[in-house]
Amino acid sequence: MIKRIDHIAIVVPDLEAGTGFWAEALGLPVERIETVPDEGVDVAFLPVGESEIELLRPTDTESGVARFLEKRGPGLHHICLEVEDIRATLDRLRAANVPLINEQPKIGSGGKKFAFVHPKGTGGVLVELYELPGQM
Amino acid sequence: MIKRIDHIAIVVPDLEAGTGFWAEALGLPVERIETVPDEGVDVAFLPVGESEIELLRPTDTESGVARFLEKRGPGLHHICLEVEDIRATLDRLRAANVPLINEQPKIGSGGKKFAFVHPKGTGGVLVELYELPGQM
Repeated sequence: MIKRIDHIAIVVPDLEAGTGFWAEALGLPVERIETVPDEGVDVAFLPVGESEIELLRPTDTESGVARFLEKRGPGLHHICLEVEDIRATLDRLRAANVPLINEQPKIGSGGKKFAFVHPKGTGGVLVELYELPGQM
Repeated sequence: MIKRIDHIAIVVPDLEAGTGFWAEALGLPVERIETVPDEGVDVAFLPVGESEIELLRPTDTESGVARFLEKRGPGLHHICLEVEDIRATLDRLRAANVPLINEQPKIGSGGKKFAFVHPKGTGGVLVELYELPGQM
């Protein structure tokens, strides 16, 4: 049902500072950088094994990521798990009284379905779920 | 050089609360629970894909994990990357002026070599490196 860790998202004040450690010092490749206006972030994607490190830089001072950076400083922001069937997973979490940020999946880039689970229900971790296109 | 995400470590006040979301609600298997007196923690291991979620419960009020829990509350604690050659990786990080918590690898359970990189050098993320036995 849960297939793998899709990504670990890390908030950075700027992408150069962020890639300084992960790419230059550690040697991970920066596969691509995307601007996501809906979320108010630029994202650098660094593949590692079957997962990715995602560096999030806020582009909008009102975004959730900007508020996180202001309140907690740079660092780990959320983890994302790929699931086989996101609707079934959300149903299962609802049945267990886990509070959801997105009651229904949203559609993201490339047609992936995603939803966030509230940290109140996970023991303090913001968890994202992905169902990738072509999956059941 | 960097092979995969070995694990994501999450601090929990008790293992029952921790496994409530990850195992019971989400359905990840709890493969095993280990007591690690040196680190002052009990650890529950929940495999997901090629990685694991590790739930850390402090057993010693003086441990780093206990202090983290007191200061920041439960949530994401560190991420661990498997590397091919931990000494070469540490040399590379030193050359890039990244501060290390462990200048030399320590030996952990099963003969794995591990070292922590200081969050000051990574953009606020506590990063652990593993070299697993039988690897070069």
